[in-house]
Amino acid sequence: MIEHRLDRMAAAGVWDGFPQQMGPLNAVTDVDGVSVGQWSRRDAGYLTGATVICFDPAAVVGVDVRGGGSGTRETDALRPGNLVERVDALVLTGGSAYGLDVAGGVMRFLEEQGKGFQVGPGPRDVVPIVPAAVLYDLSRGGGFSARPDASAGYAAARDAGVGPVREGNEGAGTGATSGPVKGGVGTASVMVGEDANVVVAAVVAVNSGGSPFDPMTGRLYGEDALYPGEWPQLGAPSGDDLARWQLSGMEEEPARPLRNTTIGMVVTNVKLDLAQTTRMASIAQDGLARAIRPVHTLFDGDTIFGASLGDAQLPTVGTVSSIGAASAGAAGLSFLYELGARTISRAVARAVLAAESTHGICSYRDLFPSACVADGSPRSGGGRGV
Amino acid sequence: MIEHRLDRMAAAGVWDGFPQQMGPLNAVTDVDGVSVGQWSRRDAGYLTGATVICFDPAAVVGVDVRGGGSGTRETDALRPGNLVERVDALVLTGGSAYGLDVAGGVMRFLEEQGKGFQVGPGPRDVVPIVPAAVLYDLSRGGGFSARPDASAGYAAARDAGVGPVREGNEGAGTGATSGPVKGGVGTASVMVGEDANVVVAAVVAVNSGGSPFDPMTGRLYGEDALYPGEWPQLGAPSGDDLARWQLSGMEEEPARPLRNTTIGMVVTNVKLDLAQTTRMASIAQDGLARAIRPVHTLFDGDTIFGASLGDAQLPTVGTVSSIGAASAGAAGLSFLYELGARTISRAVARAVLAAESTHGICSYRDLFPSACVADGSPRSGGGRGV
Repeated sequence: MIEHRLDRMAAAGVWDGFPQQMGPLNAVTDVDGVSVGQWSRRDAGYLTGATVICFDPAAVVGVDVRGGGSGTRETDALRPGNLVERVDALVLTGGSAYGLDVAGGVMRFLEEQGKGFQVGPGPRDVVPIVPAAVLYDLSRGGGFSARPDASAGYAAARDAGVGPVREGNEGAGTGATSGPVKGGVGTASVMVGEDANVVVAAVVAVNSGGSPFDPMTGRLYGEDALYPGEWPQLGAPSGDDLARWQLSGMEEEPARPLRNTTIGMVVTNVKLDLAQTTRMASIAQDGLARAIRPVHTLFDGDTIFGASLGDAQLPTVGTVSSIGAASAGAAGLSFLYELGARTISRAVARAVLAAESTHGICSYRDLFPSACVADGSPRSGGGRGV
Repeated sequence: MIEHRLDRMAAAGVWDGFPQQMGPLNAVTDVDGVSVGQWSRRDAGYLTGATVICFDPAAVVGVDVRGGGSGTRETDALRPGNLVERVDALVLTGGSAYGLDVAGGVMRFLEEQGKGFQVGPGPRDVVPIVPAAVLYDLSRGGGFSARPDASAGYAAARDAGVGPVREGNEGAGTGATSGPVKGGVGTASVMVGEDANVVVAAVVAVNSGGSPFDPMTGRLYGEDALYPGEWPQLGAPSGDDLARWQLSGMEEEPARPLRNTTIGMVVTNVKLDLAQTTRMASIAQDGLARAIRPVHTLFDGDTIFGASLGDAQLPTVGTVSSIGAASAGAAGLSFLYELGARTISRAVARAVLAAESTHGICSYRDLFPSACVADGSPRSGGGRGV
């Protein structure tokens, strides 16, 4: 009976009834082999940082660049048919194109560990493959040249851990903004199936030109994607909060630079090939589209990586007898990809909910205090991933 | 003051306050030079059709193919850098890949009219450029071989008119389904600016594997994109309707083939180049993402064309003095693209709202009669565009 119901849901495209639950950390570190390190700096003109995701073993990684103003490194190497088949780490960082140097620091750390693409007989004859994507946060802390550099990447990779991942004003989200409010880093995970053996997780640094909330109601666009109880007491803003927000639109204030970008990654323990991780990244962009409006603009470099490590099998969706083996396999993949999109939407909402006001940039929580409690979620766990 | 507010909205990515209103026909035919003809057949094993969009003068057309199972014709010719720079007509059609023959009939009609890419001195020395995208509706009327062919394309092109465009079970939407309900054709338009001189419009044939409504609440995902009063009395389904729908999920019913695809076009009278129409098509896919879940699956060939004809100038967004001329231009483009995405979302919602139950496929209106009135909108105008 349950199987038949799933079959029908697959046919109808209604996946939500499939058994799914948040992972224990509700973070990308719920995928075995994924560790995260974050470097953040908030003094001396800095308001920026970097988030480094390390894979052990190395992961199959695809990428989808949708925005009109991206800044990336090593993404050409991720195209199907190229030499490199595994990625050792990913960098999400502030600092605009200057921030691409962060990847060099991560490479240095990995080289010391002997991790990377083997190019010779020696244990250190390696070239670590470290793609990177940047967001624009120059001058948000006051200093135009206060940016993450190679030493920031080295530190983040060295400190990477498998514990909780701090959200909000951390790492690449330290200086991020999202439309009219503070942006940040967000992460989420989901475990799928009767035995919860399939994990899909995402991390994003939300620095969007578009707004994460409906300007008419104040509600987060990504709120519907959250699981029940994921962010307790989240609700609609009060009329007073809404009126104050709408009035604020008429005040004089300087125009902010139209330079943005949301960057992130969706990762799974399902064994996927490069074409599949690329497709997963592409469909994950739909998660941005649902959580941010407008999105993928010429001012955004919106870039999503898709990563696979582990050897879990695809969830079974539909009965093979009724739709054929090939379709059943593709149905499982489509389900997985859609979960990725939803997890991205959740991570965006969580990033904005976790962000805190700083440097004159108001947070969503401070803009609409009636909509959410201050610490509604176990978002900072004090794990090694600082 | 108003200009400053717009500037702030541009910076915040909050465009909705920009003056905008529905076009007089609320259809793609609100763009001067666009005509539409639809061929539909519902007897003798047929439940399929074709929608042909003609451009006079020929249009600059880009395309974005996002689904995993597309069926297209002449889309390679639309890549920037190629010989062809103008498109004479577009075909959206049922019949899966067989339906690509429809374009041949459109070409024959245009050749007779002497319209096309000029290849010689004679008035009929032309090759009409007619890209096409198909959706999967084979056997929905009972006959596997009952498909639109070249004669259908000829008839639709011959009958094309500049009046209202029928929505629902018409043209390429005749046999379409959308998740668990009947799909169809939808169209919408918006006029922008103080003098409403910029027009953005869309037409879609919704045949999605994903659902157009939230299975938990019954509300259309695309409902929020509609303008106030666009579909009168549209609201939340009653508890009774919802309970009946949720119960129906447990009934035995045969699995439907997992073959789908939503196809459409966004068109504007703003003068755009090929790279810009391609970008407009790409961002329009976000409109599908917001109105359908899941979307862009391996079973969908989701394809959107972006077309420009006319010489309207970009809307002015932001003050040049505060963000620079280049940024002001890109802000206008981004605004235009986002309007395209919203217009696609509206067209999807309208397609599903206009569709009628047939051949055992329940319409949204019949599934949730409490959510909408039977003829809430002037969706069939009896114009020449049958």
